[in-house]
Amino acid sequence: MGFVTHLDDSGHPMMVDVGSKDLTSRRAVACGWIILPNKIYNMVDKGDVPKGDVLKVAELAGIMAAKKTWEIIPLCHNLRLDHVKVRCELDELRHGIKVTSEVSAREVTGVEMEALTAVSVALLTIYDMCKGIDKGMHFEAIHLVEKSGGKSGNYLWEDRESAQDD
Amino acid sequence: MGFVTHLDDSGHPMMVDVGSKDLTSRRAVACGWIILPNKIYNMVDKGDVPKGDVLKVAELAGIMAAKKTWEIIPLCHNLRLDHVKVRCELDELRHGIKVTSEVSAREVTGVEMEALTAVSVALLTIYDMCKGIDKGMHFEAIHLVEKSGGKSGNYLWEDRESAQDD
Amino acid sequence: MGFVTHLDDSGHPMMVDVGSKDLTSRRAVACGWIILPNKIYNMVDKGDVPKGDVLKVAELAGIMAAKKTWEIIPLCHNLRLDHVKVRCELDELRHGIKVTSEVSAREVTGVEMEALTAVSVALLTIYDMCKGIDKGMHFEAIHLVEKSGGKSGNYLWEDRESAQDD
Amino acid sequence: MGFVTHLDDSGHPMMVDVGSKDLTSRRAVACGWIILPNKIYNMVDKGDVPKGDVLKVAELAGIMAAKKTWEIIPLCHNLRLDHVKVRCELDELRHGIKVTSEVSAREVTGVEMEALTAVSVALLTIYDMCKGIDKGMHFEAIHLVEKSGGKSGNYLWEDRESAQDD
Amino acid sequence: MGFVTHLDDSGHPMMVDVGSKDLTSRRAVACGWIILPNKIYNMVDKGDVPKGDVLKVAELAGIMAAKKTWEIIPLCHNLRLDHVKVRCELDELRHGIKVTSEVSAREVTGVEMEALTAVSVALLTIYDMCKGIDKGMHFEAIHLVEKSGGKSGNYLWEDRESAQDD
Amino acid sequence: MGFVTHLDDSGHPMMVDVGSKDLTSRRAVACGWIILPNKIYNMVDKGDVPKGDVLKVAELAGIMAAKKTWEIIPLCHNLRLDHVKVRCELDELRHGIKVTSEVSAREVTGVEMEALTAVSVALLTIYDMCKGIDKGMHFEAIHLVEKSGGKSGNYLWEDRESAQDD
Repeated sequence: MGFVTHLDDSGHPMMVDVGSKDLTSRRAVACGWIILPNKIYNMVDKGDVPKGDVLKVAELAGIMAAKKTWEIIPLCHNLRLDHVKVRCELDELRHGIKVTSEVSAREVTGVEMEALTAVSVALLTIYDMCKGIDKGMHFEAIHLVEKSGGKSGNYLWEDRESAQDD
Repeated sequence: MGFVTHLDDSGHPMMVDVGSKDLTSRRAVACGWIILPNKIYNMVDKGDVPKGDVLKVAELAGIMAAKKTWEIIPLCHNLRLDHVKVRCELDELRHGIKVTSEVSAREVTGVEMEALTAVSVALLTIYDMCKGIDKGMHFEAIHLVEKSGGKSGNYLWEDRESAQDD
Repeated sequence: MGFVTHLDDSGHPMMVDVGSKDLTSRRAVACGWIILPNKIYNMVDKGDVPKGDVLKVAELAGIMAAKKTWEIIPLCHNLRLDHVKVRCELDELRHGIKVTSEVSAREVTGVEMEALTAVSVALLTIYDMCKGIDKGMHFEAIHLVEKSGGKSGNYLWEDRESAQDD
Repeated sequence: MGFVTHLDDSGHPMMVDVGSKDLTSRRAVACGWIILPNKIYNMVDKGDVPKGDVLKVAELAGIMAAKKTWEIIPLCHNLRLDHVKVRCELDELRHGIKVTSEVSAREVTGVEMEALTAVSVALLTIYDMCKGIDKGMHFEAIHLVEKSGGKSGNYLWEDRESAQDD
Repeated sequence: MGFVTHLDDSGHPMMVDVGSKDLTSRRAVACGWIILPNKIYNMVDKGDVPKGDVLKVAELAGIMAAKKTWEIIPLCHNLRLDHVKVRCELDELRHGIKVTSEVSAREVTGVEMEALTAVSVALLTIYDMCKGIDKGMHFEAIHLVEKSGGKSGNYLWEDRESAQDD
Repeated sequence: MGFVTHLDDSGHPMMVDVGSKDLTSRRAVACGWIILPNKIYNMVDKGDVPKGDVLKVAELAGIMAAKKTWEIIPLCHNLRLDHVKVRCELDELRHGIKVTSEVSAREVTGVEMEALTAVSVALLTIYDMCKGIDKGMHFEAIHLVEKSGGKSGNYLWEDRESAQDD
C-alpha cells in the first residue's frame, strides 16, 4: 500500500524523516531521448554539427545538475554523491540522441531523483545548443531504468512493463 | 541555414554575444506529460492522493526553476523574468498529468529554455512525490508549444508538425 | 564561560573546527509569528484569502531554506539533514500566523540555525504573498524552542525564561 | 480592495506578471531587533565580544542575502539591485542589537522583500555567532520602515500605526 | 584620489550605490596562467592527456562562474551579461596553459570581476582535472588585460606597466 | 603512472567514483598573493585603507567559497567540511597581500580544491574592494602548500620543488 510520503495527512509538505535509516550503497540509472527534426539529425549525423562538443557540454551539465538536485526539487534530501556519469549518443532508431545517467552514493535515501535530474538537464542543454537550427525538438521516454539499495529493494523498468501487461 | 550558436568554429563553448540585440517582449509556452501507472492514476483520480497539494508543490518548483535556468543550463544568459506560470492537470487521454508553463520577459534573448526548464522540474517534482507508491512513471512529449518576440519571430509547434509532413 | 566561537582572538572569522566531534542525533524546534493588520487577519480568518495555499507555499519555502542555511549564514557548516517540517497556523491570541519548524540530523553540529532559518523564510514568504493587501505586517518572537543532541546538551526556551527571572 | 497577488483564483501559485510595468526608482528600508540575554548584552557592551567584527559579518551576510532574495522567496522576481546597505548597532532601550537595511533599485517591482530578507539574515547571523554563549536570544519587531517608488506609492510604517489607532 | 568604495567611513561593508549611473556598454578582458610540472606539460603536449576535453571543461566552468560572480564576490552587483568567452591554450613560453576571458554587458558597473572570476575558475578546473597526475601546479599572473566603458574610462594593463616604470 | 581521472577513455567528463573509498581525515593548506601597485600598498600600509575590514571581508568570502567549491568546479564532489580558515596579511617582501587557507574534513576525497578555491576567491574579493583605487593588481603563486590524508598520502609543495631540481 503506497502513499505520498512528502505530504502529511492534511496535505502539508515535508521532507521525509530518514533519521532511522542507515547509510547503504545506492545506485540508480535513468535515461531519456531528445527527438530531432531531420535537419538537425542529419547535421549531427554528418558531423556538420560538432557533435562531440555538444554532447560533452550536455554531459557536464547533467553531472552538475545531479549535485544540485536537492536545490531544484523542493522535498529532496541533500545527499553526498559518490559517482555521477552521463552519456549522450546518437540513436538512429528513435531519430535523436539518447541520454543515460548513472548515479551512486552511500546514503540514507535513494538517488533516483539525481539520475532523472541529470538526464533532464542534459536534454535541456542539447535543446539549448541546437535551438538556433530548429526549435522542433522534443523529449521522450525519460524514465528510471533501474535502482538498487535501500529498504524498497531493487527496481527494474523492464519488470514493470511485464507487470503492467498482466 | 542553421548553426550551433553556442560553439565557435573549433567547438569551444561560449555564451552567445547578444550585445547588439534590443530588449523586446518575449513569451514562451512549453508543456509535457508524466505518464502514471494505473495505481497512481487511480489514486489521484479518486482523490486518495491529495492531488491539489502534489500539483501545487510541482507548480511552485517549476516557477522557482525557471528563475534558476541560467544557473542550470551552462550557456543560457541570466535573464530578468516578468512572469512565470506553471499549471498541472490530470489528463485522461494520456493517462497522466500534463504540465504547462508560460514565461514572459522583456529581454534580449528568448525565454524558451526557462519555459522548458519549468516543465521539466515540475515533472521531476511530481515523480519525487509519488515515487513511494510506484516508480514506473515516465515523462513524455516535453516540447515548446509556442514562442513570440525576437528576431527569429513567432514559433508554433503545430506549424512544425505540418512542415514535417511535407 | 562563553565565547564567540566564529571569531579567533584577533576578530578574524572562521568556520569552527568540528573535526573532533562525532555524529550524533540532533534536533531543533523553532517558532515565530507574523502579526497581521485587521484587514488581512479577517480575510484569512473568513477564507477570503486562500489560507491553505498561502501557508503551504510558506511551509515549502521554509523547508527549502533549511537546506540552504549553510549558503545563507556565512559561518554555518553544510549539513546533511534527515528531516525538516514547517507548519503555519492562524493564531488568534497574537492576531497573526504562527510558524513552527522542526529539523533533525545525525551530524557533528546542531541544527538550530536550520530551524531558525526555516521559520524566518516562511515568515518572509507570507509577507511577500500578502503585501499586496497591506504592508503593515511585522515578525515577532522568533526564537529557538528546544534543541537536543550534542555536547552542550538539551536546551528548552522555557527553562531560560525562569533562569532570566532569577 | 486587496488580494493575494501570488495565487490565481484556484489557489495556484504564480509569479505576478509585471510585464506592463515600467522601470522606476524603488527604495525600501526595513529593520528588526535581536534581543540579547544579559550575559551576551554585557559582553558586547563591555567589548568582551569583538562587537565590530560580529556586526560586520552580519552586515555582509545581510547584503549577500538581499541579492539572493529571488532564490529564497519562491514567488519573488529576480531583480538587479543598485544599492544595499545593512547596519547593526547596539540598542540599549531594547536590550539588544538593531539591524537596519536599505535597498534601492530601478526596477519593475518593489524591493521590500530584499530589505526584509537582509534584516532577517543579518539577525540570523548574529544569532549564529553568539549562540555558543547563550541560546536565549530572540528576534523582535522585524518590519518595513518605509518604501517609495512604484504604482502603490510611498509607505511609512508610522502612518500605519496611526491608521491602526483609528 | 582613490578610495575603497565598498566600505563606509567606519569600515562597514556596503554594495556601492550605482543608482545614478546609466547603462553603458562594458567590456573586460582578463588572463592568467597555470604552470605545469614537466610530467603534465609533456603529457598534454603529446596528447597523452585529452587536451581538448580538459580545456573545454575548464572553459565551460569559467563561463558558468562569470554568471555567478555576484554570488561569489560579496559586494559585487548582480549584472546581466551579454557575452562571455573563455579560451585555454598551451603556452610553451610559460610552460603551462594560458586562460583568457572576455566579458561584455550593457550595465551600470564594469565587468572586470566577471572576467577575473572566469579566469580563476577555469584555472581551478584545470588543476582539479590534472591533480591526479601531479599536484605541483600553480597559478601565475592573473590580471585584468583591458576594460572599456563606464565613467572611469578605458584601462590597459600595458599602460600600467609603463606608468609603474616612471 | 598518472591520468586525468575526470575523463573516460573517449574524453567524456565524469565525477570520479569514490564509492569504494572510506572516510578519512583530510586536510589541505593553500596560499597565494595579490601584488599591489605602490599607491594601494602604501595606503594599506599606512592605514589609509581600512585594512582590517578589507581583509576580513576577503576572509569571509574565501570561507563561503570553500563551501561552494562543488558548485563552482564542475567535477568536484560535494563534501561536508569540518573546518575552514582563511587569513590575509600584508607581505612586504612580495609587495602585496598573502592569503592562506586551511580546510579539513573527514571525507572520501581530498580538500585541495576547497583550499585553492578559498584562496582564489579571497584574492578576487580584495581586488574587487580596491579596484576603485587602481586596477593594476595581479595574483601570483597560488598553489597547494600541503595536504594530508587519503590514499595518495601526504604532499608538501617544498618537496616538489627539490624534486623538480633533480
